Amino acid sequence: MQPIIDVSPPKWHLGHTTWFFETFLLQPFLENYQVYNVDFNYVFNSYYEGVGARVIRTDRGNLSRPSVNEVYQYRSYVDQAMLRLLDTPPTAQIEELLFLGFNHEQQHQELLLTDIKYILGNNPLFPAYKAGTQPSKKQINGSKGMISFKEGIYEIGHVGSDFCFDNELGRHKVYLHDFSISDSLVTNQDYLLFINDGGYRNFEHWHAEGWDWVKTNGVTSPMYWHFIDGSWYTYTLGGLTALDLNASLSHVSYYEAYAFASWCGLRLPTEFEWEVSAKSFNWGERWEWTESAYLPYPGFSKAPGAIGEYNGKFMVNQKVLRGASEATPEGHSRITYRNFFHPHLRWQFTGIRLAK
Amino acid sequence: MQPIIDVSPPKWHLGHTTWFFETFLLQPFLENYQVYNVDFNYVFNSYYEGVGARVIRTDRGNLSRPSVNEVYQYRSYVDQAMLRLLDTPPTAQIEELLFLGFNHEQQHQELLLTDIKYILGNNPLFPAYKAGTQPSKKQINGSKGMISFKEGIYEIGHVGSDFCFDNELGRHKVYLHDFSISDSLVTNQDYLLFINDGGYRNFEHWHAEGWDWVKTNGVTSPMYWHFIDGSWYTYTLGGLTALDLNASLSHVSYYEAYAFASWCGLRLPTEFEWEVSAKSFNWGERWEWTESAYLPYPGFSKAPGAIGEYNGKFMVNQKVLRGASEATPEGHSRITYRNFFHPHLRWQFTGIRLAK
Amino acid sequence: MQPIIDVSPPKWHLGHTTWFFETFLLQPFLENYQVYNVDFNYVFNSYYEGVGARVIRTDRGNLSRPSVNEVYQYRSYVDQAMLRLLDTPPTAQIEELLFLGFNHEQQHQELLLTDIKYILGNNPLFPAYKAGTQPSKKQINGSKGMISFKEGIYEIGHVGSDFCFDNELGRHKVYLHDFSISDSLVTNQDYLLFINDGGYRNFEHWHAEGWDWVKTNGVTSPMYWHFIDGSWYTYTLGGLTALDLNASLSHVSYYEAYAFASWCGLRLPTEFEWEVSAKSFNWGERWEWTESAYLPYPGFSKAPGAIGEYNGKFMVNQKVLRGASEATPEGHSRITYRNFFHPHLRWQFTGIRLAK
Amino acid sequence: MQPIIDVSPPKWHLGHTTWFFETFLLQPFLENYQVYNVDFNYVFNSYYEGVGARVIRTDRGNLSRPSVNEVYQYRSYVDQAMLRLLDTPPTAQIEELLFLGFNHEQQHQELLLTDIKYILGNNPLFPAYKAGTQPSKKQINGSKGMISFKEGIYEIGHVGSDFCFDNELGRHKVYLHDFSISDSLVTNQDYLLFINDGGYRNFEHWHAEGWDWVKTNGVTSPMYWHFIDGSWYTYTLGGLTALDLNASLSHVSYYEAYAFASWCGLRLPTEFEWEVSAKSFNWGERWEWTESAYLPYPGFSKAPGAIGEYNGKFMVNQKVLRGASEATPEGHSRITYRNFFHPHLRWQFTGIRLAK
Repeated sequence: MQPIIDVSPPKWHLGHTTWFFETFLLQPFLENYQVYNVDFNYVFNSYYEGVGARVIRTDRGNLSRPSVNEVYQYRSYVDQAMLRLLDTPPTAQIEELLFLGFNHEQQHQELLLTDIKYILGNNPLFPAYKAGTQPSKKQINGSKGMISFKEGIYEIGHVGSDFCFDNELGRHKVYLHDFSISDSLVTNQDYLLFINDGGYRNFEHWHAEGWDWVKTNGVTSPMYWHFIDGSWYTYTLGGLTALDLNASLSHVSYYEAYAFASWCGLRLPTEFEWEVSAKSFNWGERWEWTESAYLPYPGFSKAPGAIGEYNGKFMVNQKVLRGASEATPEGHSRITYRNFFHPHLRWQFTGIRLAK
Repeated sequence: MQPIIDVSPPKWHLGHTTWFFETFLLQPFLENYQVYNVDFNYVFNSYYEGVGARVIRTDRGNLSRPSVNEVYQYRSYVDQAMLRLLDTPPTAQIEELLFLGFNHEQQHQELLLTDIKYILGNNPLFPAYKAGTQPSKKQINGSKGMISFKEGIYEIGHVGSDFCFDNELGRHKVYLHDFSISDSLVTNQDYLLFINDGGYRNFEHWHAEGWDWVKTNGVTSPMYWHFIDGSWYTYTLGGLTALDLNASLSHVSYYEAYAFASWCGLRLPTEFEWEVSAKSFNWGERWEWTESAYLPYPGFSKAPGAIGEYNGKFMVNQKVLRGASEATPEGHSRITYRNFFHPHLRWQFTGIRLAK
Repeated sequence: MQPIIDVSPPKWHLGHTTWFFETFLLQPFLENYQVYNVDFNYVFNSYYEGVGARVIRTDRGNLSRPSVNEVYQYRSYVDQAMLRLLDTPPTAQIEELLFLGFNHEQQHQELLLTDIKYILGNNPLFPAYKAGTQPSKKQINGSKGMISFKEGIYEIGHVGSDFCFDNELGRHKVYLHDFSISDSLVTNQDYLLFINDGGYRNFEHWHAEGWDWVKTNGVTSPMYWHFIDGSWYTYTLGGLTALDLNASLSHVSYYEAYAFASWCGLRLPTEFEWEVSAKSFNWGERWEWTESAYLPYPGFSKAPGAIGEYNGKFMVNQKVLRGASEATPEGHSRITYRNFFHPHLRWQFTGIRLAK
Repeated sequence: MQPIIDVSPPKWHLGHTTWFFETFLLQPFLENYQVYNVDFNYVFNSYYEGVGARVIRTDRGNLSRPSVNEVYQYRSYVDQAMLRLLDTPPTAQIEELLFLGFNHEQQHQELLLTDIKYILGNNPLFPAYKAGTQPSKKQINGSKGMISFKEGIYEIGHVGSDFCFDNELGRHKVYLHDFSISDSLVTNQDYLLFINDGGYRNFEHWHAEGWDWVKTNGVTSPMYWHFIDGSWYTYTLGGLTALDLNASLSHVSYYEAYAFASWCGLRLPTEFEWEVSAKSFNWGERWEWTESAYLPYPGFSKAPGAIGEYNGKFMVNQKVLRGASEATPEGHSRITYRNFFHPHLRWQFTGIRLAK
């Protein structure tokens, strides 16, 4: 099922990541490869205009076929073929696409968890994904001190030969002014103060579009929070539980992050400030909203062909998030990583780190 | 899944019909009955305002829980309890509700097939529901003669002690003028003439709202028809097959039925003409659109309580259909039966019978 | 301006009724007639598909040109040409179109007032159309008695050689059962009882679609009613005034009319009951909602050409209103007149007469 | 009238700019000032949440009252009061608000022309605003050379005591890499090459959201362009005229500007590159789209109270434009000026300058 456009059905993630390997590796590079089912390109293509027509995004939830079993058969078929492809030592081009495929699959592993949380967390029965799952890791460092950095020229972007996405490339200089950044994330307790102070009822903290979003959607708390009989509860992958005040806040939109920071008399860091300072604090529990818009670095260039559609065409109207989350696979995060979402979205494990 | 608002997920039909027995029979009449799961009322209530809050209709497709297996357990639990209830000879009131529950379930048996056809027929892979299923029964009588009736007073509505829905009650007199009605249904071949004559491109045959519907939705043929490489195909429960020209036309909206009749220089019968004449022809293969709006009969009255919401509150903006369809369960049809749908709907097995 | 799709700008009415004479009388019948401005057909055609493309209805309010003065010049030009046409005694065909043009203009005279009321009554300043205009005529007969009629065959539809619209033709017999109808209209005071009894908060009185309409639009009273500092006010063409409890209720939708009747334990009359009984009571102050759907009479046929689009193509999804209103021009009403609107509309001077 | 939400009725601009002086200068600072009409705050408040409720934006076009004459009386009344206020030498605070009021009025002078162009240019009659108005000033310098700038630290933002908006403040350093920028604007002829090369049919040049915008709206050319009988025409304030190939392109969205630059193998400048280089070329004919998102400068702070809503709350989801346009009042432009619009908007006199 696909309860909102941003959430894909679990089996679709399985099929789509499989299709990625079939389309970008097996079809062009494995001799005599037989496509598993020519109609699957229509079913599992996400957004690549260069690879033909596709199911419109809102219809992903309407695909009762292929069934989950058929998708697993498809994965098995493609896995076997990938092993045949790797019988021969891969060329540099194949290796690059292979790493892209791995990282793409890791992104969908995170989405799979996020989407399942949305599907179950919006079910009136609040079923647990896995009983006993902890709501979130506690912050190791709860000090909430601000760390200061001096103005000057800093280098931004990926260096080295390790894998990174194209949007991290184009290492370049930026000039930053004096700033401070918190060594810890905002907690549920911090955010409750904002709620209890009428944060959702006072336009002054909000962008005009954020205020419209609050009123149109009747927003009064982060996603998954429920006020029941005088107490706050939150849906976690372990089910509906009492809100843990010491846990890091999660599931807020950029609009909320901005309004909260504004209420504090502070602001969100830019993505450059974040990248420069991240060695000085713990991160990795929440995707952290920044004040930066998602734009190309100087020197950014798209790869030719359909792979060039991976990142570049989304560089408008989105905000950059830095860090990683409790749902991010091991080894999939780095300081230069740029995640991006529209400002109203909050089904990801998004959080807030303050700066000034 | 729920690809359009009118189509419910198959498991929802199973749960809803079960809930109907639990809510209207077990809860009020079986002593010490323990409700299976109090949250199911929220999940499986269709439209009864009198029985509490419910999942909004567009969210039926987003319920990954309860699972299909849980729904079958629920059915089994309720079946057992129903047997206990019937250990004692039922009172007249229980018997009446029991028959309503049976007929309600039969209605959902038909919807189940219709909805599955929609779900599979709109899947890009066109999977068959059951390979070898015939597209539709051929008409026994293909004569297409018109049968004439004389003007005068006729009696309309159910008589006798057999079960009928409340909307058939209030036996009353109507005055009909001379009319003729066809002894057979419009076939695919008949309708192709309309298409090939530009029927979907000429506003003159259409209601203003029908013409808007054609243009807004880009309609050029009945639902499930596909023009592929110069030939017409249609999706049936047996899969995608060549259009059978001799089969009865199906899956047209009232707007199309009206436009086709208008193009023929004829019209649709009223529900009264249909009821008066139906003994003279074969029927039961298609739900047949009539020109009549769905209105209460003189003397119609709602039952007290939630059961009163069954039919009466839908008596505006809908058209009456008479007959039955190839998906209607055995024993669920009669000459006085009044089905009703909004004029744009066509996922049911709807057809056309002409009159003048 | 055009605050809702149903309300046209005043000058558009002036231009459209002028265009009607130009298009259906001057162009076909006046020799050497020069069209005033060929682009005006695009601007002032309302809904005649047979007369070429037109401004989409929602854009009527965006026409700053032609200006009001230009429209008056257009009217003057067409008036002059009409006089020339009538220098010669009109043929029967011309005379028929002439009367249609007159009656069409009268319909727009009523719409002009209704639309101006909407435009001014939804302005935050509540400007009066004409200071001192009385909210509505009081009912002469306030007795509220029910008048009874016996079951039997009655004749319905226009007879005689006077002008009528095509939808009144096809004089035919209907069979009516015993009924009673009120000799007076529902008053504001009557309706206040319904409001104060929670009528807008109890689904039981409403159609399912009516209930959706109430909730979606937050409806709590008839259009133009305002509850200010503990008292009811209503906007009239004379400005905002205290609600006159003895005045006839106005500006209710069919949904409200039905719900009110249902709350009373009564019902609305059918259009046939109304036509049969109207000689027995005063009418003409409100357009009165009936329970009848707007459908063709037996024997109804459309005129050939664009004029055939006048009425027939609207015969679906609308309800019939009978009577006339305080805004109806003198001489434009008769007992067989059939007005029709969608059930949610209430910007007309609509009211309620009860039956049982 | 208000044909799209972004276009306000001309008289509304007159009333709103008057209201600005009344609300922010006369009410707080002129002793014994009598508000002209207390209801006008509701009518003419644009977006200031801090000044009370207001007409929803989409309803600005529905205000037939106050009439144009009443608005002029209101202006005259406020003008007189402003003169009384200025009888006394203004305090620094008053002077600051006075300059803000002037600049605010100049912004609406530009909007007035832009909105009138939209209203007339979307009228099917294509009336001229002023016959003989030239479509646009020709570029003085047509050389189309690229001017190069060296990488390094540059200062950005307003300096000095002259008036500027708050969003220009916070003079700060940025690090720019080597770049070149065109000394001239893109012309209609340049853009025609893009159109004729299928620019609107090839997704590769577009952002994903831009491509959706093209397809959803069926965009095939800049706003106001019409392809009639094999030739291109454009609506100008002088009426519909043959497209001047040498004129600067206008009325394109950011999506189109980006796609055109991408098709050229170039890009748009950032707002910082523009500000640094603008002394080296002619500008002022088109508002020029930049690649920069509209974000606060380091050190940006909102003024307290309702005036603080002027700029800051719009700093999300918009792109910065630099320069000025043929509709900008004399004296209202400067190199540090930051205009901003959503990426799909193109009713302003927007153009393109390329960079690399």
